[in-house]
Amino acid sequence: MAVFDINPIVNSLNAVRQEWRRSQRRSREPGGREFPSPQAITKILDDLKGVLFPMRLGPLDLRQESEDFYIGHTLDSALHALLHQVRLELQYQKRHQPHDGEELEIRAIAVVQAFASALPDIRRLLDTDVLAAYQGDPAARSVDEVLLCYPGVLAMIHHRIAHQFYIQDLPLLARMSSELAHSQTGIDIHPGAQIGASFFIDHGTGVVIGETSIIGERVRIYQAVTLGAKRFPTDSNGKLEKGLPRHPIVEDDVVIYAGATILGRVTLGQGCTVGGNVWLIDDVPPGGHVTQADSQGMRTCDPAAEE
Amino acid sequence: MAVFDINPIVNSLNAVRQEWRRSQRRSREPGGREFPSPQAITKILDDLKGVLFPMRLGPLDLRQESEDFYIGHTLDSALHALLHQVRLELQYQKRHQPHDGEELEIRAIAVVQAFASALPDIRRLLDTDVLAAYQGDPAARSVDEVLLCYPGVLAMIHHRIAHQFYIQDLPLLARMSSELAHSQTGIDIHPGAQIGASFFIDHGTGVVIGETSIIGERVRIYQAVTLGAKRFPTDSNGKLEKGLPRHPIVEDDVVIYAGATILGRVTLGQGCTVGGNVWLIDDVPPGGHVTQADSQGMRTCDPAAEE
Amino acid sequence: MAVFDINPIVNSLNAVRQEWRRSQRRSREPGGREFPSPQAITKILDDLKGVLFPMRLGPLDLRQESEDFYIGHTLDSALHALLHQVRLELQYQKRHQPHDGEELEIRAIAVVQAFASALPDIRRLLDTDVLAAYQGDPAARSVDEVLLCYPGVLAMIHHRIAHQFYIQDLPLLARMSSELAHSQTGIDIHPGAQIGASFFIDHGTGVVIGETSIIGERVRIYQAVTLGAKRFPTDSNGKLEKGLPRHPIVEDDVVIYAGATILGRVTLGQGCTVGGNVWLIDDVPPGGHVTQADSQGMRTCDPAAEE
Amino acid sequence: MAVFDINPIVNSLNAVRQEWRRSQRRSREPGGREFPSPQAITKILDDLKGVLFPMRLGPLDLRQESEDFYIGHTLDSALHALLHQVRLELQYQKRHQPHDGEELEIRAIAVVQAFASALPDIRRLLDTDVLAAYQGDPAARSVDEVLLCYPGVLAMIHHRIAHQFYIQDLPLLARMSSELAHSQTGIDIHPGAQIGASFFIDHGTGVVIGETSIIGERVRIYQAVTLGAKRFPTDSNGKLEKGLPRHPIVEDDVVIYAGATILGRVTLGQGCTVGGNVWLIDDVPPGGHVTQADSQGMRTCDPAAEE
Amino acid sequence: MAVFDINPIVNSLNAVRQEWRRSQRRSREPGGREFPSPQAITKILDDLKGVLFPMRLGPLDLRQESEDFYIGHTLDSALHALLHQVRLELQYQKRHQPHDGEELEIRAIAVVQAFASALPDIRRLLDTDVLAAYQGDPAARSVDEVLLCYPGVLAMIHHRIAHQFYIQDLPLLARMSSELAHSQTGIDIHPGAQIGASFFIDHGTGVVIGETSIIGERVRIYQAVTLGAKRFPTDSNGKLEKGLPRHPIVEDDVVIYAGATILGRVTLGQGCTVGGNVWLIDDVPPGGHVTQADSQGMRTCDPAAEE
Amino acid sequence: MAVFDINPIVNSLNAVRQEWRRSQRRSREPGGREFPSPQAITKILDDLKGVLFPMRLGPLDLRQESEDFYIGHTLDSALHALLHQVRLELQYQKRHQPHDGEELEIRAIAVVQAFASALPDIRRLLDTDVLAAYQGDPAARSVDEVLLCYPGVLAMIHHRIAHQFYIQDLPLLARMSSELAHSQTGIDIHPGAQIGASFFIDHGTGVVIGETSIIGERVRIYQAVTLGAKRFPTDSNGKLEKGLPRHPIVEDDVVIYAGATILGRVTLGQGCTVGGNVWLIDDVPPGGHVTQADSQGMRTCDPAAEE
Repeated sequence: MAVFDINPIVNSLNAVRQEWRRSQRRSREPGGREFPSPQAITKILDDLKGVLFPMRLGPLDLRQESEDFYIGHTLDSALHALLHQVRLELQYQKRHQPHDGEELEIRAIAVVQAFASALPDIRRLLDTDVLAAYQGDPAARSVDEVLLCYPGVLAMIHHRIAHQFYIQDLPLLARMSSELAHSQTGIDIHPGAQIGASFFIDHGTGVVIGETSIIGERVRIYQAVTLGAKRFPTDSNGKLEKGLPRHPIVEDDVVIYAGATILGRVTLGQGCTVGGNVWLIDDVPPGGHVTQADSQGMRTCDPAAEE
Repeated sequence: MAVFDINPIVNSLNAVRQEWRRSQRRSREPGGREFPSPQAITKILDDLKGVLFPMRLGPLDLRQESEDFYIGHTLDSALHALLHQVRLELQYQKRHQPHDGEELEIRAIAVVQAFASALPDIRRLLDTDVLAAYQGDPAARSVDEVLLCYPGVLAMIHHRIAHQFYIQDLPLLARMSSELAHSQTGIDIHPGAQIGASFFIDHGTGVVIGETSIIGERVRIYQAVTLGAKRFPTDSNGKLEKGLPRHPIVEDDVVIYAGATILGRVTLGQGCTVGGNVWLIDDVPPGGHVTQADSQGMRTCDPAAEE
Repeated sequence: MAVFDINPIVNSLNAVRQEWRRSQRRSREPGGREFPSPQAITKILDDLKGVLFPMRLGPLDLRQESEDFYIGHTLDSALHALLHQVRLELQYQKRHQPHDGEELEIRAIAVVQAFASALPDIRRLLDTDVLAAYQGDPAARSVDEVLLCYPGVLAMIHHRIAHQFYIQDLPLLARMSSELAHSQTGIDIHPGAQIGASFFIDHGTGVVIGETSIIGERVRIYQAVTLGAKRFPTDSNGKLEKGLPRHPIVEDDVVIYAGATILGRVTLGQGCTVGGNVWLIDDVPPGGHVTQADSQGMRTCDPAAEE
Repeated sequence: MAVFDINPIVNSLNAVRQEWRRSQRRSREPGGREFPSPQAITKILDDLKGVLFPMRLGPLDLRQESEDFYIGHTLDSALHALLHQVRLELQYQKRHQPHDGEELEIRAIAVVQAFASALPDIRRLLDTDVLAAYQGDPAARSVDEVLLCYPGVLAMIHHRIAHQFYIQDLPLLARMSSELAHSQTGIDIHPGAQIGASFFIDHGTGVVIGETSIIGERVRIYQAVTLGAKRFPTDSNGKLEKGLPRHPIVEDDVVIYAGATILGRVTLGQGCTVGGNVWLIDDVPPGGHVTQADSQGMRTCDPAAEE
Repeated sequence: MAVFDINPIVNSLNAVRQEWRRSQRRSREPGGREFPSPQAITKILDDLKGVLFPMRLGPLDLRQESEDFYIGHTLDSALHALLHQVRLELQYQKRHQPHDGEELEIRAIAVVQAFASALPDIRRLLDTDVLAAYQGDPAARSVDEVLLCYPGVLAMIHHRIAHQFYIQDLPLLARMSSELAHSQTGIDIHPGAQIGASFFIDHGTGVVIGETSIIGERVRIYQAVTLGAKRFPTDSNGKLEKGLPRHPIVEDDVVIYAGATILGRVTLGQGCTVGGNVWLIDDVPPGGHVTQADSQGMRTCDPAAEE
Repeated sequence: MAVFDINPIVNSLNAVRQEWRRSQRRSREPGGREFPSPQAITKILDDLKGVLFPMRLGPLDLRQESEDFYIGHTLDSALHALLHQVRLELQYQKRHQPHDGEELEIRAIAVVQAFASALPDIRRLLDTDVLAAYQGDPAARSVDEVLLCYPGVLAMIHHRIAHQFYIQDLPLLARMSSELAHSQTGIDIHPGAQIGASFFIDHGTGVVIGETSIIGERVRIYQAVTLGAKRFPTDSNGKLEKGLPRHPIVEDDVVIYAGATILGRVTLGQGCTVGGNVWLIDDVPPGGHVTQADSQGMRTCDPAAEE
């Protein structure tokens, strides 16, 4: 007799899946998984990191004089792999409606081409982030250390790539890219967030930055800072409205210390400072300083909603 | 001459180990490692994820029409691998007392069979969690995105499996399973916690849920929420008592915002809301709202203990 | 026609790199990467974990009677791999000044030899950490579970090794070692922190311990505790001064509960307790208790700086 | 200055490739490799070996009671992987002529379905080969040893699969399959050869069996035996004619000893024996015995051609 | 509809397997594969090669001063892995008869211990083989080149290990070990062959050496040489008798050139030479020379049998 | 008690090694392996195959329009890896004599540069070999099939590379390169052999081509052909003389059928044909035909020596 009787479990699992698929109105058509793959995205991002920073994140045996060969080859390979994932996401988006395969292919190619063209600017922005970290942390000894060791920089590499996917209307690829960094760093930046140059996140664990956040240049934030939504706007039917601006605007040169929570479409004025653990749901004027003590009085009694 | 003189270091390390083993009253009998292996657990959990969600977490080339073959094969392999780990844990539990090998084997098989039979219910519960995340997060675009990208869902897959190990009295396997998710997501759910259907953790980094927590249905919590113990009950000898209920009860439809800390065997009544960063050591009535401002007055002066 | 036109992107990326290198005054000399490698450090640390705890973190098929063979072989291999990384870091430190290769080699060997000699003491300290976790957590069932499953213990293994690199003046290797643990555990301990025996971090996600922190024996801290700097001392030119003591001193037997933030060169006196979420920028007397309520009044209006 | 000047070599290699492509009238259209892949074939054959002999060539942890799950899953995966390779080969066959993609897809599916349906018969034939080896070699101790260790059996597993590809008009897949065995065993059987049941090749190194060979049942041959072509038939233009029968017919129960060379469309009559090192270009009557001495006189003075 | 209908094929394959198992009188009891594994043997042999020649076939980063650590660790690991394979083979040998598990375990341990004790002598013999190759091939430039590059030496490393398994009555492990070398080198030495010191096989492809061959010291043979059996002795029932001496005895200092075939229990006297392609079924006196011309007359008309 | 007592075996193995090293006059200085590595050569050759034939032997996802990027990157990486192996071989050559490190480095670089410059010619020659196989084998369906599947072509890729190493006086790298092909194909071509364009080896198993062989253009040979040495010339002291021409010269357009053995510095005149199994130690005139029958009379009674 077999040690375990597998058959009834296989059958029950099958029944649960059919139940789910029925409830989700899934077709029961046979077929493979037509969905972007986190493993593929991981490989693409690893290649793109090498393309952006060949002598630090590329292969160990790379030499400066042959960087361009490496970059050309790796970029070509990464873009074609990306093209396949883009196709899958576009098909998935259209799965409930008839669509023209050729048109979709043209769109996919255009999207990848646009992404590729943005890479030099992404590198330029990331260079400002590296410098910001180097200048903002007295413990940093070199820009190389910052690039290789700082979780905040890793999170920004992923974010600046994921943000491109987001503005190309590829939310799944964007999300997969940013979750890879979230898992490694504990820093959770929504791909939709708009973040200016020279951004520095120190330590980083527990940082959450919401989808419609707008962050200026030279902003510095510490671990466990949340830029969240205060409440979810609802439409006349009580359904959540999507895409409305609901996260903070952080102007240039702002510093936000660890554990601060800023909720809703408030504006932190240029050069202001938010102290550690502060709970904030109001604007701060340019140059202002908010400490936890100040922030007590500002609280409304409404339960603070965050997304 | 050798570059490094290894021998004295090997000898010193040996001496420290003997010291430790003496202090731990370890036998000095030769022999191999008789202890469950995190690597084995990792493989088993990866297989079980494929068994539960074959078209999303199974192999990339799987097709819907042959799911059951894949599931049967993978489940059989995973259960036998699990059987071996269960044996190791049971032997370890009995290491200081005489025990009957055959009885232990019967127990191991029964435990794995019971675990296997629970898998369809685990899948059903996880489906409710996926739906809860999809409905609770306006940014979520599809249930597939939720299943593949949300750290809170990954944590719940691990938890619902680990909880089965826990109630089968396999605390080591349970702990190894949940620590795998903790490491990837920053979400630390003790395998003992009882959690109802449709549970949703957003962002998740820094969440801690203690061993005797009881959570109802449709509960939603955000990053950095702690459901902890207020103090450790001690027995008449001053020793920590184990297993006493010491973590919160969270009833159905409760929402707890980011950074809230709820300590002790308090009850959050059905449908209540706990605001961000709130520090709470008292009950909240059903439908109640607690904000940080409210919570200031409730504090006792005792140092709050957490486990 | 090619699907993507790679050439202009390769050229633009080249231009951005040249810009960066000019701004960093990098030589344009061809050559390979002369920089320590995180992958190499990962392998070295995995080997060292096996050397320190052969029957728990070494190979699965190891047997007690042949531990010393395994340790000798693995240690020799790890030390020579480390020697190579040390060479790279020393060369990198001297990259802007002329230096004597032979002298540097002698220094590298001496540094690795000193590191190796410290390993037995590192193991002895880690044994106290394991015991502290076992005794401090009522949920812990065995020292083996603690060693294999507790993220706080993993963080301390990395820290006690990284701290050796730090005091040997190898900040890059130190940082790479501690970031590996940070990524897996969410616990961010600067390699410079001095930590006494029997240290226990529970749960751990979000813990940050700054460079000049000094922690006594038998200290216990919980998740999301920050031991930070209040402000960065500046010299007469307004430049950040490095290396000044700016993080807390935590004396023996102190307990700090989850979410507490302690900033600046304050002293937490022996045996005192700091409650959860407390924000603290002043000394606490020996045996004292601080709760969140107490701490409200202590706040200055200055924005709290943290590093 | 770079150590090596790569550019001129890259350019020269490019020039040689263009020369070759021009000479081969290759299009210079950009595009990927549209050609079956030996690596893919290797994986497919490994899977098929497991499908045919699950408890000996399947995964180590397979158990008899769940064979069918394994087989169903692996077969499904292997057939879809094969479908992709079949597509590539069919497209390659049609590369110089217009063709209808849909028709080609229908053909590819039909071919794979036919192949799959032949698998049970392939297994049945291979069982006879295993038994023949077991019975024909006094050193063989069990059928399991024969299946796992005998190169002749490995070569026949590949051949019986490759022959199916051959008769489905997939010569590239057929060739790749048989060359994998050739490389491992030194036995070179053309996929076109027709080989009856209970075939046994002992030792095997150096065996060559040509495309139009026809081998009956219960035939036994030893190392370095060649069944070759005597000369290549040419058409009236002096061009080699393809597909004409040009290799030996070996009837049932024939034994051919090591090093024998049999060339041309001769017939070795039922039950005859060919001695070691014999050179043979004439028929042998049923039951006949040919030794090297006999064979001297038979030689013509023409140079013996072999394919 | 599914692309392929897998079910009928799975069922047919199942039917063929049942047929085979019935014909082989296999139990239909469920259970795993209880049979030595070629993959395990491959790993064990790789480890043993490192144990025997640490600085040439061991890990690349090994250093001479710590060889013994490496050897002790690797040997211990290899012996325990071997112990497991020995157990499997002994159980397989006894599969049709009742047996005492404990006795079998004692036997397995004794066998492995005996094998281990033979390793220094194996190394000593292999050193003579290496020297013989170096001295016998004018193209050889160093003993290191011989050890690393000569297929004949690789075949002898496998043979001298396999022969130990053979004399410990472990024919499956022996056969698996020698087939690994056969596949890589084209040299097929039966594990039973007794081969003296300083044996050299040049080129090697196609060499076959039968089970009861006895080879003296300082013998040299070239590619495609066969030491085979002339006919298989049968008992009074016409069944093949096993184990009877049926292969050549080759005395000290004999040289056999490429392609020579020597069959039956003949003796090649000390110091004799056998020319290329010679077919030989008679004794050769000490110091004699046989060429192909000589050998023509010796032939009998019987079909030459070889095993 | 330990299962196996490892220590005495470790000690005995140590003793045997010391014995060997003493006999070889090896220094007992500690240190690592300073010797070229077959694994490194394998990787270098795999890279070079991709450099030579990017769309067939390069990465699966390569596209024609970005070949040059791939080639530049891979070539650079392969040449630097080769440089390291060349250094090791040159140091090994000089191990018994004082040498100047810088001079050796200059030599190593020059050697690799020369090798790199020869690659386009190697490709051009290999193209002729591929065409020869395609035209010479009626079974060949395309040049792509020939390149990917024919063992003779694989052997020639290795040989033409190995021959470059040989003429650069790197016999170890040359030998390692050719043995890799020997192991996979059973074709053993000494790196020293000079082979003209359009060379075709069919089937190939058992082919041996000696060091001083000279082969013209458009030569075709079949399996088991030996081009060997008749006897080893000795100097006045009876020592083997090295480097003397001792293998056949094969002029243009010669065909040699399977199993033929040609020994000594004989010349096979242009366009002649050597029949299967022929044993030949004399010249053949241009256009001549030799069959086995012819060759009987030519034999001398001397034992035929082969190398």
